[in-house]
Amino acid sequence: MAHGIGDDCAVLRVPQGWRALVTTDLCVEDVHFRRGWHPAPSVGHRCLARGLSDIAAMGGEPVACFLSLGLPPGFSQKWLTGFLRGLLKLAQESKVALAGGDTSSAPKITADIVVVGKVPAGRALLRSGARPGHGIFVTGELGGAAATLQQLYAGEKPDASHSLCHFYPQPRLQAGRWLRANRLAGAAIDLSDGLSVDLRHICDESRVSAIVETDALPIAMRADLKLALHGGEDYELLFTASKNARIPASIAGVPVTRIGEILPCSAGSSPARIVQLRDSIGRLRPLKPAGWEHLRKI
Amino acid sequence: MAHGIGDDCAVLRVPQGWRALVTTDLCVEDVHFRRGWHPAPSVGHRCLARGLSDIAAMGGEPVACFLSLGLPPGFSQKWLTGFLRGLLKLAQESKVALAGGDTSSAPKITADIVVVGKVPAGRALLRSGARPGHGIFVTGELGGAAATLQQLYAGEKPDASHSLCHFYPQPRLQAGRWLRANRLAGAAIDLSDGLSVDLRHICDESRVSAIVETDALPIAMRADLKLALHGGEDYELLFTASKNARIPASIAGVPVTRIGEILPCSAGSSPARIVQLRDSIGRLRPLKPAGWEHLRKI
Repeated sequence: MAHGIGDDCAVLRVPQGWRALVTTDLCVEDVHFRRGWHPAPSVGHRCLARGLSDIAAMGGEPVACFLSLGLPPGFSQKWLTGFLRGLLKLAQESKVALAGGDTSSAPKITADIVVVGKVPAGRALLRSGARPGHGIFVTGELGGAAATLQQLYAGEKPDASHSLCHFYPQPRLQAGRWLRANRLAGAAIDLSDGLSVDLRHICDESRVSAIVETDALPIAMRADLKLALHGGEDYELLFTASKNARIPASIAGVPVTRIGEILPCSAGSSPARIVQLRDSIGRLRPLKPAGWEHLRKI
Repeated sequence: MAHGIGDDCAVLRVPQGWRALVTTDLCVEDVHFRRGWHPAPSVGHRCLARGLSDIAAMGGEPVACFLSLGLPPGFSQKWLTGFLRGLLKLAQESKVALAGGDTSSAPKITADIVVVGKVPAGRALLRSGARPGHGIFVTGELGGAAATLQQLYAGEKPDASHSLCHFYPQPRLQAGRWLRANRLAGAAIDLSDGLSVDLRHICDESRVSAIVETDALPIAMRADLKLALHGGEDYELLFTASKNARIPASIAGVPVTRIGEILPCSAGSSPARIVQLRDSIGRLRPLKPAGWEHLRKI
């Protein structure tokens, strides 16, 4: 970065032969978080994690982040300090500079995070790269973030040791970069909205269909099949890889699990059958996109 | 742009030897606009104009924009269509693609606009480039946008022919680019917060002081000295240039006016005297930053 806060724009360097990646994520109080549920540092961490996870899904390396922050009248300075501490800690761990932003008053806390990253030209992992015969893989475990949210809805106090994936999700930057550098992934996406929604995006962009093996899913402790399929905000990576690709059991310290297979999209097949679940005795049923709406059911 | 909406990030190309510019601007209903005052296309135009004006102030060329949009429950589809029409019309005129964004529910309409631009390496116009002896110049007229806002506060219907500068401000992209290409500007900034605030930013970043000639100010029709000095949202450019620079009377069809001079910042001088006004008989008085707070006095 040549120039940051202090001028009208930040000036960022993209190395020769690389491309810039840009992603924006809007977080609104009582939609994406509740002050009564989420400690301020967790809110800051989660805001930035959403953007970093998008960079990870493209196999990119984050360069800088920007924060547009709306604050209600009479907001607590202590809350703001905690929010920024959580955000800046993750920024530092991810080697990302906070390079600018904007502030305004707003009726509820509103944080729009922009992350700019870089990726070698022509090498970004896209949603459109899945091909029939590819295996479908996920990093980490599924449904853990949603299980904690379910506890919060139920008025229970989440168990600290099992709720880190909800309060402090780790964007899979190293795994995404490794997949890109080793040219192993066909398509990739991050699991922000839930497996059923995000895998459908891959199928739509790649014009393929998919089968997920129920028994293969790495369901997080305290989660269940439904949360693993439809719970969002796990921020794990979902990717596809050809049969010949040697996908290790873990990447950058994160376990990797094969959960299914990409198939051709037969002409005239029902949209409900684009993604199907296969149970332990081989029965198929449609997996409809029924993903995460953050806290919208509040 | 290699890939836009459809993947986790947009992928943007920055030419070899150029740098990326990034700016974010947060617009909140009843802070930056009122639905009762501003037609939906004007709101969309104004949101994007803020970001484009930042790119203009750096001498940059816009490449892509991103919109994070929060909408209240039961918002009108007609309003949204008008908002996007206004935004996309200006985007098209400015040759900027809408390359991504995010949506959420929110208690009030909330639009965070990100504009990414490009500028040759080492050639961005910065706030820190003003030197003693430089002349101070502005494009266009000052105070016009604030004069219209004053009418809106007073419950008057603004005269269409004099209120375009408020409802549909034109970011000075061509003028900024011309100044950069001809290496004529020392420092530059856009007049978004008001002359008194924005010129102070130049002085602070350049460690200089400034004198503004009251009689030289190009005050817009219906505006007055106070609005020209402190009214914001004119989105004109303020720049400095050395005595030897031949600054034309207009740049890219926009009049240019010399309004004052940059002086050294004498040690121990009062902060109130960093920017001073000189009236027609040579008397000096401090020009304190007392800029625009958008609609915050609502």
